[in-house]
Amino acid sequence: MPTGHEHTVKAFDADIGQLRGLISQMGGLAEQAIADAMTALTRGDETLARQVRDKDKAIDAIEAEVERLAVRVIALRAPMADDLREVVAALKIAAVIERIGDYAKNIAKRVPMIHTGADRIEALSILPAMAVLASDMVRDVLDAFARRDAAAAIDVCQRDRAVDDFYNSIFRVLLTFMAENPKTISEVAHLMFVAKNLERIGDHATNVAEMVYFAATGRYLADRENDIMGDGPQGETRL
Amino acid sequence: MPTGHEHTVKAFDADIGQLRGLISQMGGLAEQAIADAMTALTRGDETLARQVRDKDKAIDAIEAEVERLAVRVIALRAPMADDLREVVAALKIAAVIERIGDYAKNIAKRVPMIHTGADRIEALSILPAMAVLASDMVRDVLDAFARRDAAAAIDVCQRDRAVDDFYNSIFRVLLTFMAENPKTISEVAHLMFVAKNLERIGDHATNVAEMVYFAATGRYLADRENDIMGDGPQGETRL
Repeated sequence: MPTGHEHTVKAFDADIGQLRGLISQMGGLAEQAIADAMTALTRGDETLARQVRDKDKAIDAIEAEVERLAVRVIALRAPMADDLREVVAALKIAAVIERIGDYAKNIAKRVPMIHTGADRIEALSILPAMAVLASDMVRDVLDAFARRDAAAAIDVCQRDRAVDDFYNSIFRVLLTFMAENPKTISEVAHLMFVAKNLERIGDHATNVAEMVYFAATGRYLADRENDIMGDGPQGETRL
Repeated sequence: MPTGHEHTVKAFDADIGQLRGLISQMGGLAEQAIADAMTALTRGDETLARQVRDKDKAIDAIEAEVERLAVRVIALRAPMADDLREVVAALKIAAVIERIGDYAKNIAKRVPMIHTGADRIEALSILPAMAVLASDMVRDVLDAFARRDAAAAIDVCQRDRAVDDFYNSIFRVLLTFMAENPKTISEVAHLMFVAKNLERIGDHATNVAEMVYFAATGRYLADRENDIMGDGPQGETRL
């Protein structure tokens, strides 16, 4: 027979397991949303775009479930130190994934406003590669959370630089395109926001990486040179 | 002498009071950040812009304090029903105010890239009015939280429509301006992101209003026609 303490520990482990499962499920949905939004964008597929928007509700619902479960775990089991850090991390990571889902939804919403041929605008052929980088960061940081892998979290942070470089490059390409093709300005402005959404997804994956690092080690990742919430307009100055 | 129960209730009230105080303090800093960022933008005042960026750390620090306190309250006092809703609302509202501060910081970061004369670009004279609307929403929704005023929360939600209308109008003005003045495209693109940041501040104030309504009543505001996280590109289609 387990002692009372063992019983509590097992119940807590089960709760944490459930939280991890929910977050992994949310992450899978968010990755799929990014991929589908980009497919919808490059193909001009409004039906698929509509589906991305509709499916976002599922991500929101799981976030609400994580919140309920995390609050219940904190109230009922009063976890300490490492365990408490883990539960709070789950709560915060779920909120970030919900936002990542919103960015994918926002990209999907812009599909009807972008009637570009397959590669009429150069940026349309670069954006999917940027989306893959950002989406991979989301996948890898959630794997790092599942494994409590601080080193993998650092790796994700470092990859945000590449997403920012893509963004700055696409921003410049789009400005030039606008200047040369004034009639496309409206469509291109929408593409600019799509690029910004992808850049923000990278920022948020980095944000999660910092939470994973903290949950795993109890230490903060040293303030990095590049302020992740800065929304990176610095690179845009190079225009 | 208070009974044990009374003692717990008083301790909880003190905690909630402290949470409310921190949130009110964060809200005041966020409002100031929005006002200063807009002043910096319209005057081209890079020193003030720099101050807005620096002061954002204070908002982040209070958010971290709210988080620590809220988690401690949940763990130590295991509040139920209304009280738990209130603590969770404080936790979530702090996270949203932190984001509002980030939007103000982002506007400040764009100041050096926008060297427009006082009113060379028409939108520069409209943006401050939009900022006031958005900032008033933030102030009023935090007052509503402090007073548990569900009716005031509904009022804030309804005002988001006006901010969205401003945004859509400014977006169109900026596109037209770009088309007519191709040399300004880079600066105007930055103004577009400024307008988007203000629109998002309105969305987030609405988001907080929904949390305040829920904390005060235990009911969700009916899903509103206008999906607040949708980041509103629909209006932009009217171009």
